[in-house]
Amino acid sequence: MIQPIILAAGKGTRMKSRLPKVLQPLAGRPLLAYVLDAAQAVADVPPLVVIGYGSGQVQARFDGPRWVLQGEQLGTGHAVQQAAMHVADEAIALILYGDVPLVQPQTLKDLVSLVDENHPLALLTVALEDPTGYGRIVRDQHHQVVAIVEQKDATPQQLAIREVNTGMMAVFGRQLKRWLARLDNDNAQGEYYLTDIIRFCVEDGHEIHTTSPSLQLEVMGVNDKAQLAQLERAWQRHQVDRLLAAGVTVADSARLDIRGSVSVGQDVFIDVNVVLEGDVHLADGVHIGPNCVLKDVSLGENTQVHAFSHLQGCKTEPDVSIGPYARIRPDTTLAEGARVGNFVEIKQSAIGAGSKVNHLAYIGDTTMGAGVNIGAGVITCNYDGVNKHRTVIGDGAFIGSDSQLVAPVEVGEGATIGAGSTIVKNAPAQQLTLSRAKQVTLKNWLSPKQRCKGDE
Amino acid sequence: MIQPIILAAGKGTRMKSRLPKVLQPLAGRPLLAYVLDAAQAVADVPPLVVIGYGSGQVQARFDGPRWVLQGEQLGTGHAVQQAAMHVADEAIALILYGDVPLVQPQTLKDLVSLVDENHPLALLTVALEDPTGYGRIVRDQHHQVVAIVEQKDATPQQLAIREVNTGMMAVFGRQLKRWLARLDNDNAQGEYYLTDIIRFCVEDGHEIHTTSPSLQLEVMGVNDKAQLAQLERAWQRHQVDRLLAAGVTVADSARLDIRGSVSVGQDVFIDVNVVLEGDVHLADGVHIGPNCVLKDVSLGENTQVHAFSHLQGCKTEPDVSIGPYARIRPDTTLAEGARVGNFVEIKQSAIGAGSKVNHLAYIGDTTMGAGVNIGAGVITCNYDGVNKHRTVIGDGAFIGSDSQLVAPVEVGEGATIGAGSTIVKNAPAQQLTLSRAKQVTLKNWLSPKQRCKGDE
Amino acid sequence: MIQPIILAAGKGTRMKSRLPKVLQPLAGRPLLAYVLDAAQAVADVPPLVVIGYGSGQVQARFDGPRWVLQGEQLGTGHAVQQAAMHVADEAIALILYGDVPLVQPQTLKDLVSLVDENHPLALLTVALEDPTGYGRIVRDQHHQVVAIVEQKDATPQQLAIREVNTGMMAVFGRQLKRWLARLDNDNAQGEYYLTDIIRFCVEDGHEIHTTSPSLQLEVMGVNDKAQLAQLERAWQRHQVDRLLAAGVTVADSARLDIRGSVSVGQDVFIDVNVVLEGDVHLADGVHIGPNCVLKDVSLGENTQVHAFSHLQGCKTEPDVSIGPYARIRPDTTLAEGARVGNFVEIKQSAIGAGSKVNHLAYIGDTTMGAGVNIGAGVITCNYDGVNKHRTVIGDGAFIGSDSQLVAPVEVGEGATIGAGSTIVKNAPAQQLTLSRAKQVTLKNWLSPKQRCKGDE
Repeated sequence: MIQPIILAAGKGTRMKSRLPKVLQPLAGRPLLAYVLDAAQAVADVPPLVVIGYGSGQVQARFDGPRWVLQGEQLGTGHAVQQAAMHVADEAIALILYGDVPLVQPQTLKDLVSLVDENHPLALLTVALEDPTGYGRIVRDQHHQVVAIVEQKDATPQQLAIREVNTGMMAVFGRQLKRWLARLDNDNAQGEYYLTDIIRFCVEDGHEIHTTSPSLQLEVMGVNDKAQLAQLERAWQRHQVDRLLAAGVTVADSARLDIRGSVSVGQDVFIDVNVVLEGDVHLADGVHIGPNCVLKDVSLGENTQVHAFSHLQGCKTEPDVSIGPYARIRPDTTLAEGARVGNFVEIKQSAIGAGSKVNHLAYIGDTTMGAGVNIGAGVITCNYDGVNKHRTVIGDGAFIGSDSQLVAPVEVGEGATIGAGSTIVKNAPAQQLTLSRAKQVTLKNWLSPKQRCKGDE
Repeated sequence: MIQPIILAAGKGTRMKSRLPKVLQPLAGRPLLAYVLDAAQAVADVPPLVVIGYGSGQVQARFDGPRWVLQGEQLGTGHAVQQAAMHVADEAIALILYGDVPLVQPQTLKDLVSLVDENHPLALLTVALEDPTGYGRIVRDQHHQVVAIVEQKDATPQQLAIREVNTGMMAVFGRQLKRWLARLDNDNAQGEYYLTDIIRFCVEDGHEIHTTSPSLQLEVMGVNDKAQLAQLERAWQRHQVDRLLAAGVTVADSARLDIRGSVSVGQDVFIDVNVVLEGDVHLADGVHIGPNCVLKDVSLGENTQVHAFSHLQGCKTEPDVSIGPYARIRPDTTLAEGARVGNFVEIKQSAIGAGSKVNHLAYIGDTTMGAGVNIGAGVITCNYDGVNKHRTVIGDGAFIGSDSQLVAPVEVGEGATIGAGSTIVKNAPAQQLTLSRAKQVTLKNWLSPKQRCKGDE
Repeated sequence: MIQPIILAAGKGTRMKSRLPKVLQPLAGRPLLAYVLDAAQAVADVPPLVVIGYGSGQVQARFDGPRWVLQGEQLGTGHAVQQAAMHVADEAIALILYGDVPLVQPQTLKDLVSLVDENHPLALLTVALEDPTGYGRIVRDQHHQVVAIVEQKDATPQQLAIREVNTGMMAVFGRQLKRWLARLDNDNAQGEYYLTDIIRFCVEDGHEIHTTSPSLQLEVMGVNDKAQLAQLERAWQRHQVDRLLAAGVTVADSARLDIRGSVSVGQDVFIDVNVVLEGDVHLADGVHIGPNCVLKDVSLGENTQVHAFSHLQGCKTEPDVSIGPYARIRPDTTLAEGARVGNFVEIKQSAIGAGSKVNHLAYIGDTTMGAGVNIGAGVITCNYDGVNKHRTVIGDGAFIGSDSQLVAPVEVGEGATIGAGSTIVKNAPAQQLTLSRAKQVTLKNWLSPKQRCKGDE
């Protein structure tokens, strides 16, 4: 049994935030969410999460973990002590950190696989270009770990060691509890350090196995907003690299943000400065233009999304064209070959095959058939101040520009609505329906400009 | 005579695309298009292009080359063999690669100039910071090229050589054909390697001259989408550097994309995150705001394009102001001092001097005079479901907000159209024309909200 | 007394601009503006600014400095000579450069503090990674400055010196004048070099004190558009770092542009590709979405600005929601909980608490009460071709979609306006007011499409 213990009690003062550190967002999700995901991917029991600062806020955000309250923050060793009673003797405790979010499940599997009764402690270490500030891994001539030496205590020779302690470790439950009981706080900070159990392990004559992550970002911790911004970029870059490896053509790797999960078909193109959020699926041949924001969308084959479009919660069939400047809101479907143009908002509507909403329109709560043409400036008046009502438009209807369809209302198949009409009753199929005042010209009328000239 | 031979038969499996490798887009154009441009800039005969995978797709994209089909892909030597019969004995064959797109004409001229009957082979080499993986150029004490040694065959001393083979070479026709005949495929891959002819040249006692490109990106090849993304950035950066050298003020060199050719006057400013496509001309004092997309446009002096504008196929005279959020579509001209504002779409129209279309309007197929004021929400109804019709608006006309001009229709000079009118017949000059129902108030009407309250 | 002297006479030929070099914009402001700010922060008298090329243009941009005209540009020494007569004997002259814009006041204070009658000259020096091209600071075994050696005159040993002269210095007035009188132009360029006074100072037996800036960008000069672009990025990066240190969460440090001054509360989030201009205040919990442009705005607590919004000169109370694609223009206030949606333009208006303008509307010169609902496509017709007029909308009014409010006009509290109405007279409170033609259907009408089919 693997029992993750996640330390998540810190305030993160340097974040300068009212939000506890582990709730700070990375790619749109709290740091802790990533650690929980990784823990749950390798463990068969709910993780123990040690919380303290802002514990109420933290608990409110997640279902599933087993919460352990650390009343005072007296060090990492103290934090793990609070959780230890819930760890079975035969379990392997996997110590993780709520502010080191990107450790990957494979790394944790590798780490845990090094632990058994004879090797009760395994460490995750990493070799850093610049190890300044980190605890160095000191090894003997047999390459055995003999100590972790902190920066301030290190000899010049030890300072040159590039392999450092990440703090993440896997420990056999029985020994973990024994060693935690031996911790003291006899140091400058008066804190209980978890690192001391590594010394106990060596003293007890056990060999310590180590492993390293495949990506350096897996062990990057976050203490302030500058580090958060760095990790955000490293993570985005890693995700973009995965898209590139999957064959996506990306116009600028440094200008694509992924905040969620993206699945792609073949020959997908993503232009500069695009943001993808939530669950995004882009089928074969999808083309996303520059400066688009897509959230929770599924786009059918060869769908083209032009510049400056903002799509949320919609689904398209193949060969749909959207934008530029189109805003599609949740619960919208666009059937094959539909076209949505500029300055158009669509919400909670079904747009039929080949239908066009090309210019400056608002379509809400509408069921639209195939081959419909919606003129510029058409508005479905779906809200009466209290309730929303639906508009139904039949196949092949032609809605003249600047018309209002006052819902609930139905426009029949093949009907034509005259430009500028206010349609308050159903419009029959195949006929022209309109509401229009007669065009008149006032002969002796003077425009304000003409009157002004007269005044001069 | 210079006879370019471009190798373009590979599939590019690592691209994970249905598109052949040489059709993958760089800055919006297929890789092969760049190589063809460079070849055509130095050669007096059509290039021979060796195609194989997706040959139909490749041929369909380009006019001009002489196509040579390589049925099986048996190596670079085999590819050139297919083309050799078309190379005249006295010609200089210039071997290029469809997936090494950015070699510049000057570099090719330099390379070709090194070849004559006594120096039948000249090589393009480059010194790399990290030469790992490339064939090293081995020279003797007289600095003469004596061999190309592949990575796997190199001694430690040879591995330290930073000068590498780019594969590009110029070869006198007669010798090329002789040497190609000597190639064999007696190697692990069973392929015919073009590189072997360098050995033959040395064996035949010829001195090999070399030259190097001025930019490293000239010899960067593309095998997967990550490399394509890298080359895209390197190319963009190079193009931006040229604009900077021409005196353009660029807010962020890393956030300007050029996909085509840009010519500029003096004192042009380009803000962050702009995309320029096709042929773009920006006259003196043009100012492009952040997040704009411009394609095939010519902007007159001091034209200001504000944030989030999308311009395609339009031409402005001096002192025009566009945007923010303006969309100008093809075949549109904006005369001196015209102003187009937010959420406005204009297509195939001429906007007269000093005319204003400032807010939420759709102007299509329109000829507009000077000094016209188009109110907010005005729409030209140019489409009747079958045909497009034109709208003509005379000088100084004032079109009230939310009016529809149902084309074909003409509004006379100095005419005023009342707000909210549907204009279906010509409106005479200097007069007020409108269509408007009387404003009435229903005294005992209860709004849905009031009725709701009544229900409570 | 501290007397700044700013050298600002150069043309900046390599800028390829009609604008004098010191007027080139960095983060939206002329280079010289930064130097003037820094000078004024440490000096008690107006700076002397030596101008030459484009002097009229330069003078027209700034109030406050005392201008000194340098008729011919005969070197830095010559430039300071023109200003010297205005420097008091007991003053400390502080020599600055109009094209080295980002020197910080603290650095200047440090520099000036090193000068007194016994130490009449203090230098600002900096250690560079690559000092190529700069004058090296040569020191003796007591670390005393003994000479500045120019690149071309330096021995190999001197070339290895990384400490270089920035040109900025503080000099006691009396000595400055004496030393300036000793300058000659007996050199290749025939120019008078200010640097020579450092030699005079050493010759006169004075010890030269030096100090260095805390940021390297403080001494970066600008000679062409590439350097301007580099300094722009360095400066933006520095400003973003300050926001990060203040606790702002920034999605991408490389894609945030600050052109002015930004003050922030706690828990502010700024998404990718945002531009902040002028005076911007973001209160606690403000969230700025991707691709927004904000100029001179003050946003209340928890205000959310969604993607693609463009705000200028507006002020919000708490909990306001704006965008996506909202354009707010100057003199607009949004009261608590107001909502502005997509493709909406608002100018010079007050939007009451909880009021909503959600879709495709133009609201100008309007005073709107609380709880108002503005339908899609509503337009205030505020302009009659000559004057602007105001619209007043009472609390709780409901303005039906696509209505026009022809100002001056008043809509009473709780009034309802029917969709598509043109409101030209005041609409009474609590009633339904509308202008609407009867909806009719033309039975035997054939649409253009039907007629086309008939023709076939």
